[in-house]
Amino acid sequence: METENPAGSYGKQAYTQVGKLGEFGLIKRLTEKIILKQPSSIKGIGDDAAVIEPGKDEVILFSTDMLAEGIHFDLTYTPLQHLGYKAVSVNVSDICAMNGIPTQITVSIGVSNQFSVEALEELYKGMRFACEEYGIDLVGGDTISSHSGMVISISILGRAKKEEVTYRNTAQVDDIVCVSGDLGAACAGLLVLNRGKEMFNNDPEAKPDLTGYEYVLKRQLMPQARVDIIGLFKTEHIVPTAMIDISDGLSSEVHHLCEDGKIACIIDEERIPINDVVKKVADEFKTSPMAYALSGGEDYELLFTLSKKDFEKIKNSDKLKRIGEIVTASHGISFRDRAGKLHPLSAKGWDGLQGEN
Amino acid sequence: METENPAGSYGKQAYTQVGKLGEFGLIKRLTEKIILKQPSSIKGIGDDAAVIEPGKDEVILFSTDMLAEGIHFDLTYTPLQHLGYKAVSVNVSDICAMNGIPTQITVSIGVSNQFSVEALEELYKGMRFACEEYGIDLVGGDTISSHSGMVISISILGRAKKEEVTYRNTAQVDDIVCVSGDLGAACAGLLVLNRGKEMFNNDPEAKPDLTGYEYVLKRQLMPQARVDIIGLFKTEHIVPTAMIDISDGLSSEVHHLCEDGKIACIIDEERIPINDVVKKVADEFKTSPMAYALSGGEDYELLFTLSKKDFEKIKNSDKLKRIGEIVTASHGISFRDRAGKLHPLSAKGWDGLQGEN
Repeated sequence: METENPAGSYGKQAYTQVGKLGEFGLIKRLTEKIILKQPSSIKGIGDDAAVIEPGKDEVILFSTDMLAEGIHFDLTYTPLQHLGYKAVSVNVSDICAMNGIPTQITVSIGVSNQFSVEALEELYKGMRFACEEYGIDLVGGDTISSHSGMVISISILGRAKKEEVTYRNTAQVDDIVCVSGDLGAACAGLLVLNRGKEMFNNDPEAKPDLTGYEYVLKRQLMPQARVDIIGLFKTEHIVPTAMIDISDGLSSEVHHLCEDGKIACIIDEERIPINDVVKKVADEFKTSPMAYALSGGEDYELLFTLSKKDFEKIKNSDKLKRIGEIVTASHGISFRDRAGKLHPLSAKGWDGLQGEN
Repeated sequence: METENPAGSYGKQAYTQVGKLGEFGLIKRLTEKIILKQPSSIKGIGDDAAVIEPGKDEVILFSTDMLAEGIHFDLTYTPLQHLGYKAVSVNVSDICAMNGIPTQITVSIGVSNQFSVEALEELYKGMRFACEEYGIDLVGGDTISSHSGMVISISILGRAKKEEVTYRNTAQVDDIVCVSGDLGAACAGLLVLNRGKEMFNNDPEAKPDLTGYEYVLKRQLMPQARVDIIGLFKTEHIVPTAMIDISDGLSSEVHHLCEDGKIACIIDEERIPINDVVKKVADEFKTSPMAYALSGGEDYELLFTLSKKDFEKIKNSDKLKRIGEIVTASHGISFRDRAGKLHPLSAKGWDGLQGEN
């Protein structure tokens, strides 16, 4: 785990300012190791646009996400390889949430002229690693100087059969509400990292001991998009009735699903999957781990609804968990506590714009 | 022409800080006027990804561009509507340069929480206007807070018949080198704007008189991508042998075309189209207008090569001009002056990263 500024720490080996290489030299250096693997990528980096061959009888999925230093990531403790990996994962997760297969990305980065080329190479290394893991191609992008912190903008294409595309507004009454993995871990990881940063700021000799927190740190620094769940759906011939990825906390996503779909749901407190490390962190911070799960954000798990028939096919999988059921809109969105009592569930998800500054 | 900070000037009417609305409220307000028009846009804003139906026997073109405040635009004199329009044009130009038809964009914007919603609405107004003009749909995006100046990242999709896609590295010896429109105007416009800003900084009562400079100001502030040239190629059943858009100045693009294509070319000084207003500005700044054309950048005209047969079909069009011819690589890339003398032409194009800071 880096505790120094990673942009600076590379100075020990070799340090080349981004501005020294020039735009074309920089692009060449960052992209020379990129190899296209998708049969659909006819032309990648090196022309005015990438050329993509769409699959027969398939639609194209198209999404984008922007990450800014100081808002979405903190370079004082985020290794650049992890950041590169995460920036790709966040986008792949959007394609998964449509029940699609990710295929190509473009990457635009704004950095100060003083930033080191070696640090940018680390970032690209993480992105290349993610591309390999997800089987996608980096086919284009833009690298510009900015007068401020680093900004990463990734756009992604994916593919899906038209009839298999899963929207967020199509859940049906009596469907089973499921979630992949477990929730609240990314938030717990962020709290642990911020605590370590504070210790270090108060005493630069302090070495925060992160042993035992590996699970939540990895979930925060290097989240994995759930392409495996999409694979499971394909294998089991399941098309979820609705799906969304959990970027802003469960309660916020539940509200999107219900409000857009004009239905409601009951979420069972006792069914919400939370890892033991998350419980330990919540205990240390004297809060409820449920708060992290409901409004922590950045878990990049999938929230989806299945017909009862489809749920039967995969109910024994350890990759997902039933957490509730869809009811008519008139019931309102509710949270059933361990005692069986219903409470209205608000949308108090993490809000990137209100939460900062 | 605004001389105050546009972000601030909207305060006279209504001023709502971006941070006050929250992420979802802001997205709703900025996107509620967006209507999908492309038959290929199955689903736009409002889910995890947009859904696009590819054309039969067509490939998808995919490109992206990032613009940063203080590097690519100066909010002290750039009206936000113009900026929105330009950000879209820059991307549409990339699709044109592949001989494609633009279809969909996503827009990601990073702004400070203190930025005004009304100012962002102006930016979106300009983008919507560009979308209408180019017949494309805004289908997704991301709006985030940043601790710094404004960053705009747009990604674009386009479509083309596979056999009509025009790359930059496929020019053939004896092809005719052509350029659309005229060159150097965007650079001249920038110089005039910066001169006005300096006058205003020295004396806030000064009102720079911009009469007579309208042509170059428009070319800088609101460039139009040459979709009309792509239309002309379709009408005349022409597929250029190679094409690139002129974002970094003619000489830089000529070098890309030749180096990637392993050929060379001779560019005729007397054939390079330069508008009279550009000559006037160059005169005022005591430089050669040819410098603006060769290394000014941001013209977003198309540089393309045609077989002699195809050139005959459109040689009388006033939209384009023959400026040279392709020769074998061993000749070197050269510039023929008005006296007929050949000079080596360097790639000294505008370099976004080296040129700043």
